[in-house]
Amino acid sequence: MADEPVVRRRVVKAASGISEARVNGQKTQSQYQPYKDAAWGFINHWYPAVFSKELAEDEVKGIQICGIPIVLRRVDGKVYALKDQCLHRGVRLSEKPMCFNKKTISCWYHGFTFDLKDGKLSTIVANPDDKLVGTTGLTSYPTEEVAGMVFVFVREDDFADEDVPPLSQDLPFRFPENSERFPHPLWPAAPSLLDADAVGHGMHRTGYGNWRIACENGFDNAHILVHKDNTIVHAMEWVLPLGILPTSDDCITVVEDEQGPKGMMQWLFTEKWAPVLENESLGLKVEGLKGRFYRTSVVLPGVLMVENWPGEHIVQYEWYVPITDDLHEYWEVLVKVCPTEKERADFQYKFDRVYKPLCLHGFNDCDLYAREAMQNFYADGTGWDDEQLVATDISPITWRKLASRWNRGIAKPGKGVAGSVKTHSIRFKDTAAGKPPGYFVEQIED
Amino acid sequence: MADEPVVRRRVVKAASGISEARVNGQKTQSQYQPYKDAAWGFINHWYPAVFSKELAEDEVKGIQICGIPIVLRRVDGKVYALKDQCLHRGVRLSEKPMCFNKKTISCWYHGFTFDLKDGKLSTIVANPDDKLVGTTGLTSYPTEEVAGMVFVFVREDDFADEDVPPLSQDLPFRFPENSERFPHPLWPAAPSLLDADAVGHGMHRTGYGNWRIACENGFDNAHILVHKDNTIVHAMEWVLPLGILPTSDDCITVVEDEQGPKGMMQWLFTEKWAPVLENESLGLKVEGLKGRFYRTSVVLPGVLMVENWPGEHIVQYEWYVPITDDLHEYWEVLVKVCPTEKERADFQYKFDRVYKPLCLHGFNDCDLYAREAMQNFYADGTGWDDEQLVATDISPITWRKLASRWNRGIAKPGKGVAGSVKTHSIRFKDTAAGKPPGYFVEQIED
Amino acid sequence: MADEPVVRRRVVKAASGISEARVNGQKTQSQYQPYKDAAWGFINHWYPAVFSKELAEDEVKGIQICGIPIVLRRVDGKVYALKDQCLHRGVRLSEKPMCFNKKTISCWYHGFTFDLKDGKLSTIVANPDDKLVGTTGLTSYPTEEVAGMVFVFVREDDFADEDVPPLSQDLPFRFPENSERFPHPLWPAAPSLLDADAVGHGMHRTGYGNWRIACENGFDNAHILVHKDNTIVHAMEWVLPLGILPTSDDCITVVEDEQGPKGMMQWLFTEKWAPVLENESLGLKVEGLKGRFYRTSVVLPGVLMVENWPGEHIVQYEWYVPITDDLHEYWEVLVKVCPTEKERADFQYKFDRVYKPLCLHGFNDCDLYAREAMQNFYADGTGWDDEQLVATDISPITWRKLASRWNRGIAKPGKGVAGSVKTHSIRFKDTAAGKPPGYFVEQIED
Repeated sequence: MADEPVVRRRVVKAASGISEARVNGQKTQSQYQPYKDAAWGFINHWYPAVFSKELAEDEVKGIQICGIPIVLRRVDGKVYALKDQCLHRGVRLSEKPMCFNKKTISCWYHGFTFDLKDGKLSTIVANPDDKLVGTTGLTSYPTEEVAGMVFVFVREDDFADEDVPPLSQDLPFRFPENSERFPHPLWPAAPSLLDADAVGHGMHRTGYGNWRIACENGFDNAHILVHKDNTIVHAMEWVLPLGILPTSDDCITVVEDEQGPKGMMQWLFTEKWAPVLENESLGLKVEGLKGRFYRTSVVLPGVLMVENWPGEHIVQYEWYVPITDDLHEYWEVLVKVCPTEKERADFQYKFDRVYKPLCLHGFNDCDLYAREAMQNFYADGTGWDDEQLVATDISPITWRKLASRWNRGIAKPGKGVAGSVKTHSIRFKDTAAGKPPGYFVEQIED
Repeated sequence: MADEPVVRRRVVKAASGISEARVNGQKTQSQYQPYKDAAWGFINHWYPAVFSKELAEDEVKGIQICGIPIVLRRVDGKVYALKDQCLHRGVRLSEKPMCFNKKTISCWYHGFTFDLKDGKLSTIVANPDDKLVGTTGLTSYPTEEVAGMVFVFVREDDFADEDVPPLSQDLPFRFPENSERFPHPLWPAAPSLLDADAVGHGMHRTGYGNWRIACENGFDNAHILVHKDNTIVHAMEWVLPLGILPTSDDCITVVEDEQGPKGMMQWLFTEKWAPVLENESLGLKVEGLKGRFYRTSVVLPGVLMVENWPGEHIVQYEWYVPITDDLHEYWEVLVKVCPTEKERADFQYKFDRVYKPLCLHGFNDCDLYAREAMQNFYADGTGWDDEQLVATDISPITWRKLASRWNRGIAKPGKGVAGSVKTHSIRFKDTAAGKPPGYFVEQIED
Repeated sequence: MADEPVVRRRVVKAASGISEARVNGQKTQSQYQPYKDAAWGFINHWYPAVFSKELAEDEVKGIQICGIPIVLRRVDGKVYALKDQCLHRGVRLSEKPMCFNKKTISCWYHGFTFDLKDGKLSTIVANPDDKLVGTTGLTSYPTEEVAGMVFVFVREDDFADEDVPPLSQDLPFRFPENSERFPHPLWPAAPSLLDADAVGHGMHRTGYGNWRIACENGFDNAHILVHKDNTIVHAMEWVLPLGILPTSDDCITVVEDEQGPKGMMQWLFTEKWAPVLENESLGLKVEGLKGRFYRTSVVLPGVLMVENWPGEHIVQYEWYVPITDDLHEYWEVLVKVCPTEKERADFQYKFDRVYKPLCLHGFNDCDLYAREAMQNFYADGTGWDDEQLVATDISPITWRKLASRWNRGIAKPGKGVAGSVKTHSIRFKDTAAGKPPGYFVEQIED
């Protein structure tokens, strides 16, 4: 043992020549500095806010995305979204909804009343002639509702209406228009939320950690070990490989079309990613490989698409919506085109009985755990500098670079909002009552 | 919509000319900078510590005010107050009271023994001849006990005894001496804690937020909406206006008499504050107005007086005693002069059956909620700069200015005390056990 | 009272001349600045990790010492210890142990596999040919197992194997080799963990506070008051003095032998520490003194030995193992030499029935409380500067100085580990679920 030097952390042999692109050197890191700065998320993007069924007619709900508090109200079917922070004394309108008509929402504290359409301060209940009326307002956020989901365009205060891109630019690649570029062995076109008759089923819950760590886990091709004991795997009698490895530089296609979503496609079902069946030194060998032909892609602002999963002609979407720098809302949505009532009912049945318990929970719960397990390493910034990456990490590195190039803005650290001060006595009071930080605003009963 | 500019937060039309005094401009803010600096409270002032009944003969209790730990002990009826932090190793004497005689309190840890009268280190149990004895001591705090309440003069270590002002200088204006200046339609003189036969009934509890936010809510004339559904309002068959608006510049009188309390009186029952009965654009109209003739004032260090509330010939006092920068002790006290045993019994009965459940709780619980709702906005300093004020906010702005001029000192951020480090593992241990931060020291049982 | 100046905190009379060594002046403090810097502990020292029975054959457990996460695995009886932070994405190996053979431990997330012996990255499950393999690794930590305890040498990443000192250099003085230097009235040689037939019984639990505050309480000779009501004291019909006072400068012997442990011995059973039986001014007088002839010593990195306690021919060891800067693992271990089966059984019986409930709990629980009581004062650094020390504090001052001279390194504040960010949302989630921060890693079930 005397002639064998003690090997310790980060003592990398110079001779072995880890390629620049894989090791997290200064040069590579400089290419994704904006990503490292985006702890509070990318702003000026479309994010899911609630499922349609979570916001009934005339209901008001408060959420927070990228450190921005947002109040939603549905009137005559349409969803309106405003900054959920009264410009007077800063309380959240959603904490105690007060609406006198279909066009406005009023603050429950001093009666400041805002137009739902554009956020303008249109009156004050007991002060209608105040000089402030008509001169100021709350930022409004464009909304879209498709396939049972409400999306909000979360923007900076001075982002102009005319610059708001269509929702499709922040959703995964659609088919059949991409069928030739991205051929799939099973079908010519995976479904999209935007398709006619598309049905989305899913759930969302708060993830305790930064959104980037969660997102990178979503399209991580090397963590198959985490899932080896999942019920769905065994129920389907699949036999998983030990892992998959990129075989050439075109294993990932970066997509940067001017008018389309910006992201990347991982060719998992092709010869570009080879299954690994053996590890000799550990005596591991897989026989009778039998799995699923799925394929993954990710687009800004962090939307995962897994095609052909968990069943044929189904896609799974995932979002990791930043709430603060250490909290995100984790969305899992399955989409299928169901033109008939029968197909809708079948999909619902399968979702409730199989997909939700075994996939969205059983399978993905393991990922939730893995994401939390990384938090200590990354939360104080250490991880971004100290991680030692390998061949399969071409996926997160490619993502970090493209996200740095194409995001529409880095959200500023939240100010004056939940999570901007993490040690506030109210947080301790709530925690003592068993309530950790979350996504929705808790409303007060009179 | 094209020619209508997008109205967003803080895009104030230059033309409309919001008056300097109302908008929170740089100039106005500079006039109350000391107030903005007083997150830990104003020091060298009188504050309520406990109700008399909370400190029995020979009892010892620990509290914290303005970041200063204070131990109270009652001996032969008199209450003594010392800094509750042993000068040896910093433990709180109150955690495990140890008193060998009527003149001292000893530290339970190493026996350091202090004179109750002046805080001097008079002996050490097992080290009576140590050189330190007689040369040092703990700061002592003057006390006063009136109408069932114990007050402590919370001072800096070098504030001289001879400079301690009378308690009356930190209590609301008294009558009849102010009856002519501040005439009230119902009586010539509202009662005071200092009056002969004055009886105080009330409660105190910990408020999760900064004391200034709480205090400003106390005399806020524009938040009547919060109370519109309160039981007391409907039980009394009152009809509230939408709000009240100042009609002239003398709607508030600032009181700065040399020897008296420093504060302001709001002429709510006069033509100086007009009730608002209609908001045309919202279609709101109040008919048959029928409320209470109350009047509010506030004096340093943050004492609210509501005259003629919640009944005739009663006043309600409120204090928002700073514990730390994000915690205060909220006091609500009703005072009535009761010369006879019968009147005392009646007042007690009414307090228990009506005032406490419907006013101190029902009505004021809404205010507690409103105060917490502002915390995220103000806790990181954002609120003080971003709030947009209106005509009715002449009240907090006047208060902020006068408090900045007349306070006797800005409390320094707490050092070496509860709340100076908010992330300490003990805080997490206590929180996990369901115990949020609070006002009283929890004592240990052997 | 007019001619008597107001005595307040830290107003020390110049004339009375407190000796430099006792008052915490700038000069004295400069001599133990390294100690003041050691909030996260002293590194490159031996610390207890687990009791032998806490780590069964093939078991894996994660702990944290001096801000360093450490994973333990026992294979064929031997305990291996590695840095418990995968060099890839920073997760803890111990959270979900995965071992494919007796020589390695693999990361459950991406299959990075490390040699238990030296920490080298020997393979990656699904990526065995990656360029990183064989070029890097995790820091390994030498282990020793004696008398039912597993010790780990917690070192910096570049601390060489050949420089690792024997465990005995970080354990208290042994006898009989020190019997002449440190004669004890009851026996020629107190037992040691390292003795043949030594049996150790004890417990460990998380202490909520800094390790130094805990350690100083361990050998504090002046806090006897805390224990006056303990059951063990009364059960044994002891009569304690009010305290004990040093009578000469040689009341403490500093031990700095080149090859031995560095520490100090307090001659408590001799005329060098006189019992105090009376405090005239408080009217306290002890008669019929009847206690125990115990003696205390402390050595680096903070190991207490109490000889002849809680029974004859028994010693009590204590460790205050730093986890973070505000958390430590408190160890209490009783050692006795038991050559026969009968003696082992008797010791076990006595431990379970008397020593554990009445001493390790009853008696020492009071110390735990005292340690927590000091935390607010010391946690923000105030205490180190503001404490006012007396004659008996020659003990902590002597310890602080010698620890500053002889420690093998100051642990750096933890980075990328539990406790480096104290406000992380996961901590609030765990706290809301009733789980405060602790010592062991909680493992996930599939």
